[in-house]
Amino acid sequence: MRKARSDSRQKIIRGAQDLLCRQGYRGTGLAQIIEESGSPRGSTYFLFPGGKEEIATEALAASGVEFDAMIRAARESSPTAAAWVQTMTEYFAGSLRDSGFTQGCPVSTVTLDSAPGSPALTAACRSAYDRWLSALADGLTGYGVADEAAADLAVVMLTGLEGAMLLCRARQSTEPLHQVARYALRAIEAELP
Amino acid sequence: MRKARSDSRQKIIRGAQDLLCRQGYRGTGLAQIIEESGSPRGSTYFLFPGGKEEIATEALAASGVEFDAMIRAARESSPTAAAWVQTMTEYFAGSLRDSGFTQGCPVSTVTLDSAPGSPALTAACRSAYDRWLSALADGLTGYGVADEAAADLAVVMLTGLEGAMLLCRARQSTEPLHQVARYALRAIEAELP
Repeated sequence: MRKARSDSRQKIIRGAQDLLCRQGYRGTGLAQIIEESGSPRGSTYFLFPGGKEEIATEALAASGVEFDAMIRAARESSPTAAAWVQTMTEYFAGSLRDSGFTQGCPVSTVTLDSAPGSPALTAACRSAYDRWLSALADGLTGYGVADEAAADLAVVMLTGLEGAMLLCRARQSTEPLHQVARYALRAIEAELP
Repeated sequence: MRKARSDSRQKIIRGAQDLLCRQGYRGTGLAQIIEESGSPRGSTYFLFPGGKEEIATEALAASGVEFDAMIRAARESSPTAAAWVQTMTEYFAGSLRDSGFTQGCPVSTVTLDSAPGSPALTAACRSAYDRWLSALADGLTGYGVADEAAADLAVVMLTGLEGAMLLCRARQSTEPLHQVARYALRAIEAELP
Protein backbone atom coordinates (compact mmCIF):
# COMPACT_ATOMS: atom_id res chain seq x y z
CA MET A 1 0.00 0.00 0.00
CA ARG A 2 2.73 2.40 1.06
CA LYS A 3 4.77 1.19 -1.93
CA ALA A 4 1.89 1.78 -4.37
CA ARG A 5 1.41 5.27 -2.99
CA SER A 6 5.08 6.06 -3.39
CA ASP A 7 5.04 4.73 -6.99
CA SER A 8 2.08 6.97 -7.82
CA ARG A 9 3.84 9.98 -6.33
CA GLN A 10 6.94 9.19 -8.38
CA LYS A 11 4.97 8.87 -11.62
CA ILE A 12 3.20 12.15 -11.07
CA ILE A 13 6.43 13.97 -10.21
CA ARG A 14 8.24 12.50 -13.24
CA GLY A 15 5.42 13.51 -15.55
CA ALA A 16 5.38 17.00 -14.06
CA GLN A 17 9.17 17.40 -14.49
CA ASP A 18 8.84 16.54 -18.14
CA LEU A 19 5.95 18.93 -18.77
CA LEU A 20 7.45 21.80 -16.77
CA CYS A 21 10.66 21.42 -18.71
CA ARG A 22 9.17 21.84 -22.13
CA GLN A 23 6.16 24.06 -21.53
CA GLY A 24 6.69 25.80 -18.21
CA TYR A 25 4.48 26.15 -15.15
CA ARG A 26 1.92 28.49 -16.64
CA GLY A 27 1.57 26.38 -19.76
CA THR A 28 0.97 23.15 -17.86
CA GLY A 29 -2.43 22.31 -16.43
CA LEU A 30 -3.12 19.97 -13.54
CA ALA A 31 -5.36 17.88 -15.83
CA GLN A 32 -2.45 17.34 -18.23
CA ILE A 33 -0.10 16.30 -15.41
CA ILE A 34 -2.67 13.77 -14.22
CA GLU A 35 -3.28 12.49 -17.74
CA GLU A 36 0.41 12.09 -18.64
CA SER A 37 1.18 10.32 -15.38
CA GLY A 38 -1.63 7.84 -15.97
CA SER A 39 -2.71 8.23 -12.33
CA PRO A 40 -6.33 8.28 -11.26
CA ARG A 41 -7.56 11.82 -10.67
CA GLY A 42 -8.75 11.06 -7.15
CA SER A 43 -5.42 9.72 -5.98
CA THR A 44 -3.63 12.78 -7.33
CA TYR A 45 -5.79 15.09 -5.24
CA PHE A 46 -5.22 12.81 -2.26
CA LEU A 47 -1.43 12.69 -2.72
CA PHE A 48 -1.07 16.39 -3.53
CA PRO A 49 -3.78 18.35 -1.76
CA GLY A 50 -1.95 21.57 -2.73
CA GLY A 51 -2.65 20.83 -6.40
CA LYS A 52 -0.50 22.02 -9.28
CA GLU A 53 1.73 24.31 -7.22
CA GLU A 54 2.54 21.54 -4.75
CA ILE A 55 3.31 19.05 -7.53
CA ALA A 56 5.52 21.59 -9.32
CA THR A 57 7.37 22.47 -6.12
CA GLU A 58 8.10 18.79 -5.52
CA ALA A 59 9.09 18.24 -9.15
CA LEU A 60 11.60 21.10 -8.90
CA ALA A 61 12.95 19.72 -5.62
CA ALA A 62 13.33 16.29 -7.25
CA SER A 63 15.28 17.85 -10.15
CA GLY A 64 17.41 19.64 -7.58
CA VAL A 65 18.30 16.29 -5.98
CA GLU A 66 18.83 14.44 -9.29
CA PHE A 67 21.20 16.92 -10.95
CA ASP A 68 23.04 17.35 -7.66
CA ALA A 69 23.59 13.58 -7.55
CA MET A 70 24.63 13.53 -11.21
CA ILE A 71 27.20 16.32 -10.69
CA ARG A 72 28.64 14.55 -7.64
CA ALA A 73 28.68 11.09 -9.26
CA ALA A 74 30.43 12.52 -12.34
CA ARG A 75 32.94 14.17 -10.01
CA GLU A 76 33.62 10.89 -8.17
CA SER A 77 34.39 9.05 -11.37
CA SER A 78 36.53 11.79 -12.95
CA PRO A 79 40.21 11.95 -12.06
CA THR A 80 40.62 15.35 -13.76
CA ALA A 81 38.54 18.50 -14.16
CA ALA A 82 38.64 17.96 -17.92
CA ALA A 83 37.09 14.49 -17.56
CA TRP A 84 34.44 15.87 -15.20
CA VAL A 85 33.41 18.67 -17.56
CA GLN A 86 33.31 16.18 -20.44
CA THR A 87 31.12 13.72 -18.53
CA MET A 88 28.61 16.41 -17.61
CA THR A 89 28.60 17.86 -21.12
CA GLU A 90 27.89 14.43 -22.61
CA TYR A 91 25.13 13.84 -20.11
CA PHE A 92 23.28 17.01 -21.12
CA ALA A 93 24.03 16.64 -24.83
CA GLY A 94 22.64 13.10 -24.69
CA SER A 95 19.51 14.22 -22.88
CA LEU A 96 18.89 16.93 -25.51
CA ARG A 97 19.47 14.57 -28.44
CA ASP A 98 17.45 11.70 -26.99
CA SER A 99 14.44 13.94 -26.39
CA GLY A 100 14.53 15.63 -29.80
CA PHE A 101 15.66 18.85 -28.05
CA THR A 102 12.53 19.11 -25.91
CA GLN A 103 14.21 18.26 -22.62
CA GLY A 104 16.42 20.54 -20.65
CA CYS A 105 16.03 21.86 -17.16
CA PRO A 106 12.56 22.29 -15.61
CA VAL A 107 14.01 24.77 -13.13
CA SER A 108 15.03 27.24 -15.83
CA THR A 109 11.67 27.14 -17.61
CA VAL A 110 9.79 27.67 -14.35
CA THR A 111 12.17 30.43 -13.23
CA LEU A 112 11.49 32.34 -16.42
CA ASP A 113 7.73 31.92 -16.53
CA SER A 114 7.00 32.18 -12.80
CA ALA A 115 9.74 33.95 -10.82
CA PRO A 116 9.34 36.07 -8.85
CA GLY A 117 5.53 35.86 -9.26
CA SER A 118 5.07 32.73 -7.18
CA PRO A 119 7.03 32.80 -3.91
CA ALA A 120 6.80 29.00 -3.47
CA LEU A 121 8.09 28.25 -6.97
CA THR A 122 10.77 30.95 -6.77
CA ALA A 123 12.05 29.43 -3.52
CA ALA A 124 12.06 25.95 -5.09
CA CYS A 125 14.04 27.20 -8.12
CA ARG A 126 16.50 29.08 -5.98
CA SER A 127 17.02 26.08 -3.74
CA ALA A 128 17.69 23.79 -6.75
CA TYR A 129 20.23 26.28 -8.14
CA ASP A 130 21.89 26.57 -4.73
CA ARG A 131 22.26 22.78 -4.51
CA TRP A 132 23.88 22.63 -7.95
CA LEU A 133 26.19 25.55 -7.19
CA SER A 134 27.33 23.78 -4.00
CA ALA A 135 27.90 20.52 -5.86
CA LEU A 136 29.91 22.32 -8.55
CA ALA A 137 31.93 24.34 -6.02
CA ASP A 138 32.65 21.18 -3.97
CA GLY A 139 33.81 19.41 -7.12
CA LEU A 140 36.12 22.29 -8.00
CA THR A 141 37.70 22.55 -4.56
CA GLY A 142 38.30 18.78 -4.77
CA TYR A 143 40.52 19.43 -7.81
CA GLY A 144 42.39 22.08 -5.85
CA VAL A 145 40.61 25.33 -6.78
CA ALA A 146 40.56 27.85 -3.91
CA ASP A 147 37.19 28.37 -2.18
CA GLU A 148 36.45 31.87 -3.48
CA ALA A 149 37.38 31.08 -7.07
CA ALA A 150 35.35 27.85 -6.84
CA ALA A 151 32.22 29.77 -5.84
CA ASP A 152 32.65 32.14 -8.82
CA LEU A 153 33.48 29.33 -11.23
CA ALA A 154 30.44 27.35 -10.12
CA VAL A 155 28.28 30.31 -11.18
CA VAL A 156 30.13 30.50 -14.50
CA MET A 157 29.62 26.76 -15.08
CA LEU A 158 25.94 26.72 -14.12
CA THR A 159 24.98 29.86 -16.06
CA GLY A 160 27.00 28.69 -19.07
CA LEU A 161 25.24 25.33 -18.98
CA GLU A 162 21.75 26.81 -18.62
CA GLY A 163 22.40 29.37 -21.35
CA ALA A 164 23.88 26.73 -23.64
CA MET A 165 20.84 24.48 -23.17
CA LEU A 166 18.69 27.41 -24.31
CA LEU A 167 20.71 27.94 -27.46
CA CYS A 168 20.81 24.19 -28.12
CA ARG A 169 17.03 24.00 -27.95
CA ALA A 170 16.55 26.97 -30.27
CA ARG A 171 19.05 25.58 -32.77
CA GLN A 172 18.40 21.88 -32.31
CA SER A 173 22.11 21.33 -32.06
CA THR A 174 24.41 20.38 -29.19
CA GLU A 175 27.27 22.51 -30.52
CA PRO A 176 26.71 25.48 -28.12
CA LEU A 177 27.12 23.09 -25.18
CA HIS A 178 30.50 21.95 -26.47
CA GLN A 179 31.64 25.52 -27.20
CA VAL A 180 30.72 26.66 -23.69
CA ALA A 181 32.31 23.58 -22.10
CA ARG A 182 35.66 24.36 -23.75
CA TYR A 183 35.69 27.87 -22.29
CA ALA A 184 34.48 26.73 -18.87
CA LEU A 185 37.30 24.20 -18.75
CA ARG A 186 39.81 26.86 -19.74
CA ALA A 187 38.55 29.08 -16.89
CA ILE A 188 38.78 26.16 -14.45
CA GLU A 189 42.28 25.19 -15.54
CA ALA A 190 43.46 28.76 -14.96
CA GLU A 191 42.54 28.30 -11.28
CA LEU A 192 44.09 24.86 -10.75
CA PRO A 193 47.18 24.63 -8.55
CA MET B 1 -4.24 57.02 -40.12
CA ARG B 2 -1.10 55.14 -41.04
CA LYS B 3 0.57 56.69 -37.98
CA ALA B 4 -2.24 55.59 -35.66
CA ARG B 5 -2.04 52.08 -37.05
CA SER B 6 1.68 51.93 -36.51
CA ASP B 7 1.27 53.23 -32.92
CA SER B 8 -1.28 50.52 -32.20
CA ARG B 9 1.02 47.85 -33.61
CA GLN B 10 3.84 49.16 -31.44
CA LYS B 11 1.75 49.13 -28.28
CA ILE B 12 0.58 45.58 -28.89
CA ILE B 13 4.11 44.36 -29.62
CA ARG B 14 5.53 46.10 -26.53
CA GLY B 15 2.84 44.61 -24.33
CA ALA B 16 3.48 41.17 -25.81
CA GLN B 17 7.26 41.43 -25.24
CA ASP B 18 6.65 42.22 -21.60
CA LEU B 19 4.19 39.36 -21.07
CA LEU B 20 6.25 36.79 -23.01
CA CYS B 21 9.27 37.71 -20.98
CA ARG B 22 7.76 37.03 -17.59
CA GLN B 23 5.19 34.33 -18.29
CA GLY B 24 6.14 32.70 -21.59
CA TYR B 25 4.13 32.00 -24.72
CA ARG B 26 1.96 29.24 -23.32
CA GLY B 27 1.17 31.24 -20.22
CA THR B 28 0.07 34.32 -22.14
CA GLY B 29 -3.39 34.58 -23.68
CA LEU B 30 -4.36 36.78 -26.62
CA ALA B 31 -7.01 38.42 -24.41
CA GLN B 32 -4.32 39.45 -21.92
CA ILE B 33 -2.10 40.90 -24.65
CA ILE B 34 -5.02 42.95 -25.94
CA GLU B 35 -5.98 44.08 -22.45
CA GLU B 36 -2.43 45.12 -21.42
CA SER B 37 -1.87 47.00 -24.66
CA GLY B 38 -5.09 48.95 -24.16
CA SER B 39 -5.95 48.41 -27.84
CA PRO B 40 -9.46 47.72 -29.05
CA ARG B 41 -10.03 44.02 -29.66
CA GLY B 42 -11.23 44.57 -33.23
CA SER B 43 -8.13 46.48 -34.30
CA THR B 44 -5.87 43.79 -32.85
CA TYR B 45 -7.55 41.14 -35.01
CA PHE B 46 -7.26 43.50 -37.99
CA LEU B 47 -3.57 44.28 -37.40
CA PHE B 48 -2.60 40.69 -36.55
CA PRO B 49 -4.87 38.28 -38.42
CA GLY B 50 -2.54 35.43 -37.38
CA GLY B 51 -3.49 36.02 -33.73
CA LYS B 52 -1.28 35.23 -30.78
CA GLU B 53 1.39 33.36 -32.75
CA GLU B 54 1.79 36.24 -35.20
CA ILE B 55 2.02 38.81 -32.40
CA ALA B 56 4.56 36.69 -30.52
CA THR B 57 6.66 36.15 -33.65
CA GLU B 58 6.76 39.90 -34.24
CA ALA B 59 7.50 40.61 -30.58
CA LEU B 60 10.49 38.23 -30.71
CA ALA B 61 11.69 39.84 -33.95
CA ALA B 62 11.41 43.28 -32.32
CA SER B 63 13.49 42.06 -29.36
CA GLY B 64 15.99 40.69 -31.86
CA VAL B 65 16.35 44.15 -33.42
CA GLU B 66 16.42 46.04 -30.11
CA PHE B 67 19.13 44.02 -28.36
CA ASP B 68 21.14 43.92 -31.58
CA ALA B 69 21.02 47.73 -31.68
CA MET B 70 21.89 47.95 -27.97
CA ILE B 71 24.93 45.65 -28.39
CA ARG B 72 26.16 47.66 -31.40
CA ALA B 73 25.53 51.06 -29.78
CA ALA B 74 27.38 49.94 -26.64
CA ARG B 75 30.22 48.76 -28.87
CA GLU B 76 30.38 52.12 -30.69
CA SER B 77 30.71 54.05 -27.47
CA SER B 78 33.22 51.71 -25.81
CA PRO B 79 36.91 52.20 -26.57
CA THR B 80 37.85 48.93 -24.84
CA ALA B 81 36.33 45.45 -24.52
CA ALA B 82 36.21 45.99 -20.75
CA ALA B 83 34.10 49.13 -21.18
CA TRP B 84 31.81 47.32 -23.63
CA VAL B 85 31.19 44.38 -21.28
CA GLN B 86 30.58 46.81 -18.43
CA THR B 87 28.06 48.86 -20.42
CA MET B 88 26.09 45.76 -21.42
CA THR B 89 26.21 44.33 -17.90
CA GLU B 90 24.87 47.58 -16.46
CA TYR B 91 22.12 47.68 -19.06
CA PHE B 92 20.82 44.24 -18.10
CA ALA B 93 21.37 44.72 -14.37
CA GLY B 94 19.39 47.98 -14.58
CA SER B 95 16.56 46.32 -16.47
CA LEU B 96 16.33 43.54 -13.88
CA ARG B 97 16.40 45.95 -10.94
CA ASP B 98 13.95 48.43 -12.46
CA SER B 99 11.40 45.70 -13.16
CA GLY B 100 11.68 44.05 -9.74
CA PHE B 101 13.40 41.09 -11.44
CA THR B 102 10.45 40.29 -13.68
CA GLN B 103 12.06 41.43 -16.92
CA GLY B 104 14.72 39.57 -18.81
CA CYS B 105 14.68 38.22 -22.32
CA PRO B 106 11.40 37.20 -23.99
CA VAL B 107 13.35 35.01 -26.41
CA SER B 108 14.69 32.76 -23.67
CA THR B 109 11.30 32.27 -22.00
CA VAL B 110 9.65 31.42 -25.32
CA THR B 111 12.52 29.13 -26.36
CA LEU B 112 12.06 27.13 -23.18
CA ASP B 113 8.29 26.89 -23.20
CA SER B 114 7.74 26.49 -26.96
CA ALA B 115 10.83 25.25 -28.83
CA PRO B 116 10.88 23.08 -30.80
CA GLY B 117 7.09 22.61 -30.54
CA SER B 118 6.15 25.65 -32.63
CA PRO B 119 8.22 25.93 -35.83
CA ALA B 120 7.34 29.64 -36.28
CA LEU B 121 8.35 30.58 -32.75
CA THR B 122 11.46 28.39 -32.85
CA ALA B 123 12.57 30.12 -36.06
CA ALA B 124 11.92 33.54 -34.50
CA CYS B 125 13.96 32.64 -31.40
CA ARG B 126 16.80 31.24 -33.45
CA SER B 127 16.87 34.28 -35.66
CA ALA B 128 17.03 36.64 -32.66
CA TYR B 129 19.90 34.63 -31.16
CA ASP B 130 21.71 34.65 -34.51
CA ARG B 131 21.42 38.44 -34.72
CA TRP B 132 22.88 38.87 -31.24
CA LEU B 133 25.66 36.40 -31.90
CA SER B 134 26.59 38.34 -35.05
CA ALA B 135 26.52 41.65 -33.18
CA LEU B 136 28.73 40.21 -30.42
CA ALA B 137 31.16 38.59 -32.87
CA ASP B 138 31.38 41.83 -34.88
CA GLY B 139 32.10 43.75 -31.71
CA LEU B 140 34.84 41.33 -30.74
CA THR B 141 36.58 41.36 -34.12
CA GLY B 142 36.48 45.17 -33.90
CA TYR B 143 38.68 44.91 -30.79
CA GLY B 144 41.07 42.64 -32.67
CA VAL B 145 39.82 39.12 -31.78
CA ALA B 146 40.33 36.64 -34.65
CA ASP B 147 37.17 35.53 -36.49
CA GLU B 148 36.99 31.95 -35.21
CA ALA B 149 37.65 32.89 -31.60
CA ALA B 150 35.11 35.72 -31.93
CA ALA B 151 32.38 33.28 -33.01
CA ASP B 152 33.11 31.01 -30.02
CA LEU B 153 33.37 33.92 -27.59
CA ALA B 154 30.06 35.35 -28.82
CA VAL B 155 28.41 32.05 -27.82
CA VAL B 156 30.16 32.18 -24.44
CA MET B 157 28.98 35.78 -23.88
CA LEU B 158 25.39 35.16 -24.98
CA THR B 159 24.92 31.91 -23.06
CA GLY B 160 26.61 33.40 -19.99
CA LEU B 161 24.30 36.40 -20.15
CA GLU B 162 21.13 34.34 -20.63
CA GLY B 163 22.12 31.92 -17.89
CA ALA B 164 23.03 34.76 -15.55
CA MET B 165 19.66 36.45 -16.12
CA LEU B 166 18.01 33.19 -15.05
CA LEU B 167 19.98 33.00 -11.84
CA CYS B 168 19.41 36.73 -11.19
CA ARG B 169 15.66 36.25 -11.49
CA ALA B 170 15.63 33.24 -9.17
CA ARG B 171 17.76 35.04 -6.59
CA GLN B 172 16.48 38.55 -7.08
CA SER B 173 20.04 39.74 -7.20
CA THR B 174 22.24 41.10 -9.98
CA GLU B 175 25.38 39.49 -8.55
CA PRO B 176 25.44 36.48 -10.96
CA LEU B 177 25.52 38.91 -13.89
CA HIS B 178 28.61 40.62 -12.50
CA GLN B 179 30.33 37.31 -11.70
CA VAL B 180 29.75 36.04 -15.24
CA ALA B 181 30.83 39.35 -16.79
CA ARG B 182 34.19 39.17 -15.01
CA TYR B 183 34.90 35.72 -16.46
CA ALA B 184 33.62 36.62 -19.92
CA LEU B 185 35.96 39.61 -19.96
CA ARG B 186 38.86 37.43 -18.88
CA ALA B 187 38.12 35.03 -21.76
CA ILE B 188 37.92 37.96 -24.20
CA GLU B 189 41.14 39.52 -22.98
CA ALA B 190 42.95 36.21 -23.50
CA GLU B 191 42.08 36.52 -27.22
CA LEU B 192 43.02 40.17 -27.70
CA PRO B 193 46.10 40.95 -29.78
